[in-house]
Amino acid sequence: MKKYSIKDIAKLSGVSVATVSRVINNNGRFSEETRKKVLKVIDETGYQMNYSAKSLRMNKSFSIGILVPDISNYFFSDVVQKIEEILFDKGYSTIICNTTRNNEKEAAYLQMLESKGVDGLIVISGANEFGFDYTRSEKDIPYICIDREPKDKDSTVFISSNHYQGAFEATEALIHSGCKSPVIAMHARRSSSGKERYNGFKDALKKNNIAFSKEKNVLIADIHTEDFPEVISKFINENPVDGIFAINDSIAMELLQKIAKLGKKIPEDIKVIGFDNMPQDKYSSPTLSSVKQDTDKIAAAAVDSLLKIIASPGETGDAILIPVSLVVRESSL
Amino acid sequence: MKKYSIKDIAKLSGVSVATVSRVINNNGRFSEETRKKVLKVIDETGYQMNYSAKSLRMNKSFSIGILVPDISNYFFSDVVQKIEEILFDKGYSTIICNTTRNNEKEAAYLQMLESKGVDGLIVISGANEFGFDYTRSEKDIPYICIDREPKDKDSTVFISSNHYQGAFEATEALIHSGCKSPVIAMHARRSSSGKERYNGFKDALKKNNIAFSKEKNVLIADIHTEDFPEVISKFINENPVDGIFAINDSIAMELLQKIAKLGKKIPEDIKVIGFDNMPQDKYSSPTLSSVKQDTDKIAAAAVDSLLKIIASPGETGDAILIPVSLVVRESSL
Repeated sequence: MKKYSIKDIAKLSGVSVATVSRVINNNGRFSEETRKKVLKVIDETGYQMNYSAKSLRMNKSFSIGILVPDISNYFFSDVVQKIEEILFDKGYSTIICNTTRNNEKEAAYLQMLESKGVDGLIVISGANEFGFDYTRSEKDIPYICIDREPKDKDSTVFISSNHYQGAFEATEALIHSGCKSPVIAMHARRSSSGKERYNGFKDALKKNNIAFSKEKNVLIADIHTEDFPEVISKFINENPVDGIFAINDSIAMELLQKIAKLGKKIPEDIKVIGFDNMPQDKYSSPTLSSVKQDTDKIAAAAVDSLLKIIASPGETGDAILIPVSLVVRESSL
Repeated sequence: MKKYSIKDIAKLSGVSVATVSRVINNNGRFSEETRKKVLKVIDETGYQMNYSAKSLRMNKSFSIGILVPDISNYFFSDVVQKIEEILFDKGYSTIICNTTRNNEKEAAYLQMLESKGVDGLIVISGANEFGFDYTRSEKDIPYICIDREPKDKDSTVFISSNHYQGAFEATEALIHSGCKSPVIAMHARRSSSGKERYNGFKDALKKNNIAFSKEKNVLIADIHTEDFPEVISKFINENPVDGIFAINDSIAMELLQKIAKLGKKIPEDIKVIGFDNMPQDKYSSPTLSSVKQDTDKIAAAAVDSLLKIIASPGETGDAILIPVSLVVRESSL
């Protein structure tokens, strides 16, 4: 039996190789008529898709991989879904890989995405800079980073919310509504966005002539540990806390509850502002003020940048900083 | 140049073909020493992974696809993450595809997963029965269904929470705390789990000799539409509502807020119970009672069933029904 190539299939169907590829991958735009024609030829010839990861990549697979640390996190799932929507409209499938902040897992998923021949990669968040340290084909896959510094800044685009601005504005909002001694509540884990938020908080204190000390103005707490309530209680009893900027809404939500249990009133005794503007912020008691990230713009910039890099490797743009906005609710009035 | 096969690589490395496959896919267990040895041989021979989707599947790709309608939904993301954890420990990568309840998208992702050569497929939820209608290679990929009826019950395993039991117990809890006229609040969208919850509600009324009518006991409302507040307000003003079983927590959460705005007290005037036990249930005011699904057990049963079907095609088990439990909080006291 003659072995048919994708070129043969294209010729016999009277369409381009790109169209055959799109039909095979069911990606991109083609008519039902074209689909039937190509599939008929494939059936008649017994054509088997036979490709190496590399050649598949050169032909384009119309699939994009996303590495995300935690799909149960509202911000991450929101951005990922919006990216998926845009990519699908452009004819790309999205492969979502959940790395659970685990380096070994990230390495495994990178290898898998390479072996599946994705056209590009979107890397969201993570503790360290991102690079292709684990794989054998460095820089082979075009990629862009959201909320994570790339190691090799010349080969990619770095996209993030203006976390610094969000933290700065939230902290100034606390100060302007009378807080003399604002505190930042954060987890011990470091991320590029976390560092920016920390810096924004510190600079807002500085600008308003409030002395900063790690002991009095920084509350490190992990909401997933058992001693979280004691850590909060101890910190609030030992320090003159009247305002808290929580580095994310999960921490802020826990604070609302724990502070109420300590007999303090929010916002009268202590004002609280979170980060991410999760849907549940409007259901808590009191409702939670929070910094809102513009996930529509982040998703659009991510897809736009990645497709540009895929089309013209080497042509990378500057880092893209997306503005954020403060949503004021009862907890900081 | 001689063309090397995976068998040649295995021979030259002194390991099995399965080990070479695991190293290439960076999946499963192997030592760092083995990895280096195999990669050295691959580099020296210039071996290119060259496989068709079919043969790759026969060699096993150690990857599993998941079709999920909405990763921003708490229950879905929780189950998906738990499945991913178990699969990764067993040496499998998980490819998550977000279908946004869109049939065209589901078809495209099914095609993509086939072309990427996944070993198996987990299908979560969806309006219709699941079958391989869209693809050319029916039944080629072993699959199991969670919360979605498979078309061909003999080739798969159907796993779900006992939605009927959860709805029945929630409704009886309302009745036992004094509700004379319980209502089910649900969206217009139909799903297999939604139908079961509806039946559980109706049967609880029947058992307790409460007459059921679609007009008085069923509140159809979509929280994403603008007229949601009016729909709620009209229904509550026109009917003697004293208890609501909401088919999910998103609806329940909106009800808590809208009912309070109508000047009614929860739980004194109207008791509310939701479904899914989302993390935010404990932050709302009042805190929300809800039916909890056992996502640990669902994930474990899903992986276990799928790997059995992959290992022994044709040997499928009975449907698996996972018990649920009612978590009582302030909203139904």
